[in-house]
Amino acid sequence: MFSASTLPPGPLEKVFQYIDLHQDEFVQMLKEWVAVESDFFLLQLSDGQTLPIPPILLAELGSDPKKPTVCFYGHLDVQPARQEDGWLTDPYTLTEVDGKLYGRGTTDNKGPVLAWINAVSAFKALDEDLPVNIKFLIEGMEESGSLALEELVRKEKSGFFSSVDCIVISDNLWISRRKPALIYGTRGNSYFTVEVKCRDQDFHSGTFGGILNEPMADLVALLGSLVDASGRILVPGIYGHVAPVTEEEKRVYEAIDLDVEEYRNSSQVKKFLFDTKEELLMHLWRYPSLSIHGIEGAFHEPGAKTVIPGRVIGKFSIRLVPHMDMSVVETQVKQHLEYIFSKRNSSNQMTVSMALGLHPWIANISDHQYLAAKRAIKTVFGTEPDMIRDGSTIPIAKILQDTTQKSVIMLPLGTVDDGEHSQNEKINRWNYIEGSKLFAAFFLEMAKLHSSCVPGLLDQ
Amino acid sequence: MFSASTLPPGPLEKVFQYIDLHQDEFVQMLKEWVAVESDFFLLQLSDGQTLPIPPILLAELGSDPKKPTVCFYGHLDVQPARQEDGWLTDPYTLTEVDGKLYGRGTTDNKGPVLAWINAVSAFKALDEDLPVNIKFLIEGMEESGSLALEELVRKEKSGFFSSVDCIVISDNLWISRRKPALIYGTRGNSYFTVEVKCRDQDFHSGTFGGILNEPMADLVALLGSLVDASGRILVPGIYGHVAPVTEEEKRVYEAIDLDVEEYRNSSQVKKFLFDTKEELLMHLWRYPSLSIHGIEGAFHEPGAKTVIPGRVIGKFSIRLVPHMDMSVVETQVKQHLEYIFSKRNSSNQMTVSMALGLHPWIANISDHQYLAAKRAIKTVFGTEPDMIRDGSTIPIAKILQDTTQKSVIMLPLGTVDDGEHSQNEKINRWNYIEGSKLFAAFFLEMAKLHSSCVPGLLDQ
Repeated sequence: MFSASTLPPGPLEKVFQYIDLHQDEFVQMLKEWVAVESDFFLLQLSDGQTLPIPPILLAELGSDPKKPTVCFYGHLDVQPARQEDGWLTDPYTLTEVDGKLYGRGTTDNKGPVLAWINAVSAFKALDEDLPVNIKFLIEGMEESGSLALEELVRKEKSGFFSSVDCIVISDNLWISRRKPALIYGTRGNSYFTVEVKCRDQDFHSGTFGGILNEPMADLVALLGSLVDASGRILVPGIYGHVAPVTEEEKRVYEAIDLDVEEYRNSSQVKKFLFDTKEELLMHLWRYPSLSIHGIEGAFHEPGAKTVIPGRVIGKFSIRLVPHMDMSVVETQVKQHLEYIFSKRNSSNQMTVSMALGLHPWIANISDHQYLAAKRAIKTVFGTEPDMIRDGSTIPIAKILQDTTQKSVIMLPLGTVDDGEHSQNEKINRWNYIEGSKLFAAFFLEMAKLHSSCVPGLLDQ
Repeated sequence: MFSASTLPPGPLEKVFQYIDLHQDEFVQMLKEWVAVESDFFLLQLSDGQTLPIPPILLAELGSDPKKPTVCFYGHLDVQPARQEDGWLTDPYTLTEVDGKLYGRGTTDNKGPVLAWINAVSAFKALDEDLPVNIKFLIEGMEESGSLALEELVRKEKSGFFSSVDCIVISDNLWISRRKPALIYGTRGNSYFTVEVKCRDQDFHSGTFGGILNEPMADLVALLGSLVDASGRILVPGIYGHVAPVTEEEKRVYEAIDLDVEEYRNSSQVKKFLFDTKEELLMHLWRYPSLSIHGIEGAFHEPGAKTVIPGRVIGKFSIRLVPHMDMSVVETQVKQHLEYIFSKRNSSNQMTVSMALGLHPWIANISDHQYLAAKRAIKTVFGTEPDMIRDGSTIPIAKILQDTTQKSVIMLPLGTVDDGEHSQNEKINRWNYIEGSKLFAAFFLEMAKLHSSCVPGLLDQ
């Protein structure tokens, strides 16, 4: 794209060349970041003590009033990972195999945070003028519900955020392995725990098996009442507030470039619940889903322990979509489980709690930054992006939009097969490096759009 | 019971005095044994390597042909225990509180093994003639199905075991806190795993929630199909071979001294599935039961991880009673789960395995050693024992009886509230010390019965 030309290279060409030439340094830096086991998942210790919340970083570079100010949100905490969970390499030692950079946090979210820094540092190293003022908002509690962040954002609304023109989040994935995407919506999440308790101590199944209402039998019946084999949530009334599908919306889904067969293959799944692209994407993005995550307190190790757990806690969550109301969902789930439990006539004690509640988010895709991002994608990747939503929850999007009243854009770098939250998480070297270029191009496009809107220029 | 008398004390009185005087040494020895973390639960390492099976100890003391030979079976391995599972003290540091000796293995089975040794060593220390020849069979794999033991017993049938008159097992509990018991039967156990697999890697519930047959949903439905809220096993045909209750049997149950309310209180259970003593005991001893132990591969830690486990393994077991056939049970369970799974039309893969199968055991209570044990109990505790069965599985009883054709007796020392296999396992100091006396008295009663049966004596 940037072959020899008679004209001297422009600033962006020089930045791109710089990024290509220094890519091994950028990978090395990512390796150093991955080596930090930033698993801040559990601040609550078993003895009731709480650890301090990791500091939230606010930073800025430049304050030229003629330039737009873009704020990048990222997080440096990661999901817990242990090699014995099924990692082929040590999760905290970045390992490159066939152009794939394996390691916990490579794609979620250390790689994208560094790509933004790489873009900025390329301009600085070349002594090129940065086209935008830069702000950073970096936290360490995203995987645990971004504790304390909302309070800070509210406090800084008229401080740090007052000069911001748009906020960029790069904490999700393309829907394909090749084609870039822009994201304009995410699902919310209601995370529930349901505890069934007979007593605190476990029982021996020889000594007590046959005469107890066993908590696991109760819990399995409760969890089994939540969702049917077709993926439909069985909690009465749960679909009552889900926005109906419009004709316009259908056309957006039809336009998305998704090879269902390739998607299925790359996901290593034998068969999905739905066969068409539109059904699949709608069930990922605009319909709620319910997943059962596991059970705390039961026997979970390899081997054959003959225990009757005395107290077990089931964990499940419902991904929320517009216009579901979190408190209505909470009531519906509690009433449903109480009804199922009451039918069993068990002598155990059941407690249902909504441990976490996060709203869904929808952006206005006519905002400036969506146009700038589309143009930057065209420059770097030579294609239009898929306009997509994300089935997962990025609570900060909703928090930032509602609290600062600034526009938010999600500009992902990683590909569909990156395995965020899973074993063998990776980011492709190519995506990491081209992603650094994408952010550089985005700076320039934002500056162009900004100058075209500056009142003085428009008046001419 | 052994107050001052004009007669010089007999050998048993001296042994009892010795045991009382040296009880702190005996407790100290138990403390040293508990400190050995003999958790040999997992010989199969995650990389496929297997550890060697701990050695099986055969030992003997005395070979006087005029004396009976009693063989004591015990085990030194323990169930896994970690303080964070809910122990109030370190499980491997014996801690005495109010006459209770807390620690993993105190009652199951290190305490009883040591009580036997204490009895023998009291005779030796006093230079009193041991009334019996002693044999020991001590293993380290009881909690894992007594691997390799059956082979050894078979090999030693005409060697080590040929001179044995009876085999004593003390690996279970009284049914009350005060009244001793003799045990003449145990349940067997069929331990099943049911694996549901979509893929080896986990999924993120945001990225995949809504379009998958989630393995946890399948597994919860499978486990939920096994047993109803009243404890009845739902596997078709499972009750077909269970021995019907006879009138004579009913009377045995009626004679047992059990205060249901106290039993319920000591078990810290709000309500049992049955209200009468007979129903409770029959469901513990002579009817099968099904317990769900847990799930491997799902999220099991505290906190709120939003994972869709890719591959999960449910664990459950069925306690078997006469005359259930293990291979029939295996077929019934597999067919049932295959039927339930097929109805779900899931694209996942299900695999059911019977990981462990152990037969039930019933003794002939007219054998000599039951009479000797009853007399010894009368001497030490001043009461008749409860004649009971045990709901748990002591596979070695069946193996020893079938392979050596020798009579087996179960002579427990611990009380119903000892919490074997659970958090805060304990043995009472009183039971440990009186139990040491009980074994000494048992030696003497065995010798008396033996001499009354020696052909030369009977001919006189």
